[in-house]
Amino acid sequence: GAGADNDLYINQAIVFIEDAIQYRSINHRVDSKSLWLYRWYYSRTCQWILSLTITVILALAFIEEPSSLTVTSDVRYRLPAWNPPCGLTESVELLCFLVFVVDVSVKSYLIGWKEFWKNKWLMAYILTLIVSLTDWIVSLSFFCKESVRIRRILRPFFLLQNSSMMKKTLKSINSTLPEMASVVLLLAVHLSLFTMFAMLLFARTKDNQQDKEWVVYFRNLPDSLTSLLVLLTTANNPDVMIPAYSKNRAYSIFFILFTVLGNLFLMNLLTAIIYNQFRGYLLKSVQSSLFRRRLGIRAAFEVLSSLKETPASAQQSCVSVGALLQVLQKVEMDSRCKQAITRSLKMCSCDQLSAAQFQKVFEELDKDAIKQHPPSPEYQSYFMQKLQFAFGHPYFGYLGNVVALANIISICVVLVMDADKQPSERDDFFLGAINCFFILYYLLEMLLKILAMGLKRYLSYPSNRFDGLLTVILLILEIATFSVYGFPHPGWRPEFMGLLSLWDMVRLVNMLIVFRFLRIIPNMKFMALVVTTLLDLVKNLRAFAGILVVVFYAFAITGIMLFKGAVVPLGNTSFLIQTPFPIKKVVVGCFKEKNVISWHSAHFQAEIIYCHLYVLSVHLICRWAKIYFVAWWLISSVIWVNLFVALLLENFIHKWDRRCQRESLSDIEYQRTVELMFRDVLEEPTEEELMEKLHQHPHLQLCR
Amino acid sequence: GAGADNDLYINQAIVFIEDAIQYRSINHRVDSKSLWLYRWYYSRTCQWILSLTITVILALAFIEEPSSLTVTSDVRYRLPAWNPPCGLTESVELLCFLVFVVDVSVKSYLIGWKEFWKNKWLMAYILTLIVSLTDWIVSLSFFCKESVRIRRILRPFFLLQNSSMMKKTLKSINSTLPEMASVVLLLAVHLSLFTMFAMLLFARTKDNQQDKEWVVYFRNLPDSLTSLLVLLTTANNPDVMIPAYSKNRAYSIFFILFTVLGNLFLMNLLTAIIYNQFRGYLLKSVQSSLFRRRLGIRAAFEVLSSLKETPASAQQSCVSVGALLQVLQKVEMDSRCKQAITRSLKMCSCDQLSAAQFQKVFEELDKDAIKQHPPSPEYQSYFMQKLQFAFGHPYFGYLGNVVALANIISICVVLVMDADKQPSERDDFFLGAINCFFILYYLLEMLLKILAMGLKRYLSYPSNRFDGLLTVILLILEIATFSVYGFPHPGWRPEFMGLLSLWDMVRLVNMLIVFRFLRIIPNMKFMALVVTTLLDLVKNLRAFAGILVVVFYAFAITGIMLFKGAVVPLGNTSFLIQTPFPIKKVVVGCFKEKNVISWHSAHFQAEIIYCHLYVLSVHLICRWAKIYFVAWWLISSVIWVNLFVALLLENFIHKWDRRCQRESLSDIEYQRTVELMFRDVLEEPTEEELMEKLHQHPHLQLCR
Repeated sequence: GAGADNDLYINQAIVFIEDAIQYRSINHRVDSKSLWLYRWYYSRTCQWILSLTITVILALAFIEEPSSLTVTSDVRYRLPAWNPPCGLTESVELLCFLVFVVDVSVKSYLIGWKEFWKNKWLMAYILTLIVSLTDWIVSLSFFCKESVRIRRILRPFFLLQNSSMMKKTLKSINSTLPEMASVVLLLAVHLSLFTMFAMLLFARTKDNQQDKEWVVYFRNLPDSLTSLLVLLTTANNPDVMIPAYSKNRAYSIFFILFTVLGNLFLMNLLTAIIYNQFRGYLLKSVQSSLFRRRLGIRAAFEVLSSLKETPASAQQSCVSVGALLQVLQKVEMDSRCKQAITRSLKMCSCDQLSAAQFQKVFEELDKDAIKQHPPSPEYQSYFMQKLQFAFGHPYFGYLGNVVALANIISICVVLVMDADKQPSERDDFFLGAINCFFILYYLLEMLLKILAMGLKRYLSYPSNRFDGLLTVILLILEIATFSVYGFPHPGWRPEFMGLLSLWDMVRLVNMLIVFRFLRIIPNMKFMALVVTTLLDLVKNLRAFAGILVVVFYAFAITGIMLFKGAVVPLGNTSFLIQTPFPIKKVVVGCFKEKNVISWHSAHFQAEIIYCHLYVLSVHLICRWAKIYFVAWWLISSVIWVNLFVALLLENFIHKWDRRCQRESLSDIEYQRTVELMFRDVLEEPTEEELMEKLHQHPHLQLCR
Repeated sequence: GAGADNDLYINQAIVFIEDAIQYRSINHRVDSKSLWLYRWYYSRTCQWILSLTITVILALAFIEEPSSLTVTSDVRYRLPAWNPPCGLTESVELLCFLVFVVDVSVKSYLIGWKEFWKNKWLMAYILTLIVSLTDWIVSLSFFCKESVRIRRILRPFFLLQNSSMMKKTLKSINSTLPEMASVVLLLAVHLSLFTMFAMLLFARTKDNQQDKEWVVYFRNLPDSLTSLLVLLTTANNPDVMIPAYSKNRAYSIFFILFTVLGNLFLMNLLTAIIYNQFRGYLLKSVQSSLFRRRLGIRAAFEVLSSLKETPASAQQSCVSVGALLQVLQKVEMDSRCKQAITRSLKMCSCDQLSAAQFQKVFEELDKDAIKQHPPSPEYQSYFMQKLQFAFGHPYFGYLGNVVALANIISICVVLVMDADKQPSERDDFFLGAINCFFILYYLLEMLLKILAMGLKRYLSYPSNRFDGLLTVILLILEIATFSVYGFPHPGWRPEFMGLLSLWDMVRLVNMLIVFRFLRIIPNMKFMALVVTTLLDLVKNLRAFAGILVVVFYAFAITGIMLFKGAVVPLGNTSFLIQTPFPIKKVVVGCFKEKNVISWHSAHFQAEIIYCHLYVLSVHLICRWAKIYFVAWWLISSVIWVNLFVALLLENFIHKWDRRCQRESLSDIEYQRTVELMFRDVLEEPTEEELMEKLHQHPHLQLCR
């Protein structure tokens, strides 16, 4: 009936507007049941469960068998890591897989059968699930004793497929690959030609004294290649040329030529190429987000205009304000925006909205949220007004900064004086007394500011929240110290009591004070610019960081599998070997203690960037490890760092260009998003584009 | 009289046009004698003498007293360097100073008294000369035994002031300094806050086993600062965190945070800022060159229009074609351009040229020189035509590349097989025979190509010239080998004869063959693009390179003076010390041999980038050396590398954007200059701008 139709249209409009708000695609089923499922699937709870599942399945690697998450990383001292019984992690895994199965079924159903076959990501998702489940069954049937677990390497895929931003970024990286491959090829040619040169230049001579260069670095083809590859990372920079150089200075020309061509030109060329490819990346992605938003709103307009209550008189389709208000009430969105839109609709004199008016109403979504601080309290007494003026003045804030600086300097002085003292000689009184004084000042400053500005206004500034929180923590710590160790007095050096010793307490307080010093940042213009750029960058980098996590995870799991048996603690035996593989920049450090060098496989842990490879034997590393680490260096260090630089350049230059324009508005704090940064450059999609896209919708049949 | 006036005008026009061609400023004296002096000063001979003088005075450091330019760099083996007697280098210096005195007087005279006072570079030039001469007198009065020679540090100034491009670049770098200083300040804040954190975190504990981190890296403030500064250069990347990390993995968070913030964010921010500042640099400099050219030509027009022979009838001033032809004959310029301009003037129907026409005539100067290859010879015989077709075809060139590749591979195979053989076991026959065969093929290829293309056309391609030259050298080497050692036969291992042993000859031949393989570059599209970008970059980088030389020179001389007494060869005594200063990336490598470490001062030599600091004592380095090397690192590594990256980005992106446009024209080889790269973006200066500038000319009084 017409009522049911109307309900359907209203529901469709709600979902389309929600799609527009979240920049989602509108190409999904639009019948009543599917809409209910769709809203359920994209509800906060469901998405939260999905994210949790992904986190859990990724985190499993920390406690699964070949992991070694212990406090110390030193193989000689560490206790055996906790080994979960067979079946524990596996059952958690099964639960996760079940969630993923539900996820993939709902997703596939919602986009429809036809679209499903076009969607390679979904197919890959299903394939990954099938392989993982098969591997899981194999695993259980071997009672967890099998050596290779393919499903672990596949895990990061679940993270990848869940984020549309990451998929987009990956596509973009993919399109840069041909150019990157060209430069990498060029690097390979450069490397191989120079390797041949080096082998001819530093050949074995009859005089054994003279061919040190050959013995150490250019003994054979793999050695020469490695030496020069490492030189490309600058890790063995002067060492590799020293023997030849000390024979004849002219040999250095070879190495200089190699470094200048390879490091200065080709490596930076990679940066240039990646930057060139990514120059439009942010803009393009924001542009396509804008298109999705406009499309969702237009779709909502179209379905609302099909409502039976609309008078079919006018040629142009239009939507009644009442219907829109009805829809708006059910839409989940930011309450500020909802209020603003409802207000503007109620103030609107007309009863019917055209497509353009409809879009205009929703432009509130794109607007900056102008943050207004609550007003200061108005005091009656003249004295209070004077106080308010004095302590609300910026100079009072500057005084606070100066005091914080004085505190830092005093800590620094004490540290320098105490640097070489034995812990038993140290007098904690001075530092304790100073800190006590400064923390009292901080407390006073906070209270006076609250007095002047009122609590609400005080808390509305992020810098004050940061400041206040740290002051409260410092106060609590100080009170705890006094309650345990009594008040400071000369020769105040009590025994260890409670959770932390007095010295540890003082250190903790000092660290917090150093941290609190960061409050000066907003006061320095350039620093503030840099910090906001960095924060913006972090927002835009989420997709990159996700892909990085995916790559790290895959590499770490591969590393664990490759180097599993290689960790053998050697005790304190004297076993000094010269490692032939000093790719420090390849993220692998060869850990040399005085007497012990032992190999240690690259573990997946938080410090994966700094994973250390303890050396068991030189032979092990020669083949597979080399390939593994060169691949790792290429991907993590060369490509990813360059991508990062490209993004930073892009962000910074946009920000910098805009800095001058906004100077006048600097009093108003904007909650700026990436979309807003580009607003003046973005192109609005045309009516025709929107309608063409709408007519291509696989499930929505528009009346006209 | 009128004749003398006319002569003066003609001379002025000649000089102005020459100024325009060379992009020189026209603000110099314009009376007859000054014009003669001006042309003499800018004549090739004079400029060549000046450049030679600058080269000589800079090169003096290689033979002057504290230098040690010997074949080996090893203090233990090297012979004492040649020490020129007192007065030898000093008299050469005096000669150079005299040339500079003449230079500065002529320059000052030519720009005139008024302008002289405004020109800070000239004042600095005179000051430098006075200081240098005073220092020279002091030097001689001490019989060259004085310890400090200020004039040496001042020497690079002579290089700097002689190049207008370098002065411009320096100005441009100067304007970037405030932003760079902000980031460096930010880095300093970052460093000092983290140092305080580190000192609090890794404080001395009561348990001596536990505080390895404190002992090695964070003992006191200078140590901590150094450790973290070096971490910023990534030179001690994992080492610095190992002791703490092996105590508790969580400590790594501190180091990761420091590296990510400092290295990834702040360092790259520096790149972004410098790139942002330099984005318009190339364009702006080309734009100002264009203005100088147009101004010079306009000035020539104005003086020529004042010639008495011109009919004063017309309102608009104009120039007779005859006068211009007369001027052109005397102007020193590229003969191709001169011919083209003369031709266009003769073909011109009109007798008088307006200002616009006058400018248009000289547009030939801005045009690409389209390079036309001479035609191939036309053979009568059908057989010869077939041959010509076959060997002139690109496929024949490709075949040559394939053969060169095969040669490279064969050399590689022999190298791999011979890698571990003793020199006495090596059989030179195989390599000798192979090379003989390949070189014969190369000779044949060259001859056939010459047959097909004719010698002139063959030589007109740079790739052929490269190819042919190497082939001829290879042939000569091969003939020399055979004439000395006879033809190759199995077991061909003769004794050492002549200049080089057989093995050295073969190696030399092989190196040349590897080098010859570079001929494939133009055949690969992307490689060709990259290589042309690099060549362009080298052109644009000349000014930067000059400034770099200036900085290097000043640093090297300071280094020599600071570390003069520090070089003491220690023989083979066992003297292993752990250096506390491992800033490898600071261009200083600590040379560790098995048993010997000795200090060696940073010398000024060609390999200055790789200067090695041998260690005599730890104490020496602690203060001054640290400051010296940190300054060196900041300037050479951080700032200069970033400048380089910025320029590379700028060049590459321009080139890349233009690549698609020019694709169609790729058959015609352009002799492209920087000016041409930007031609479509440049703005022509307006009539008003030019005339305003002309009226500001200090010496030229225009009639109207």
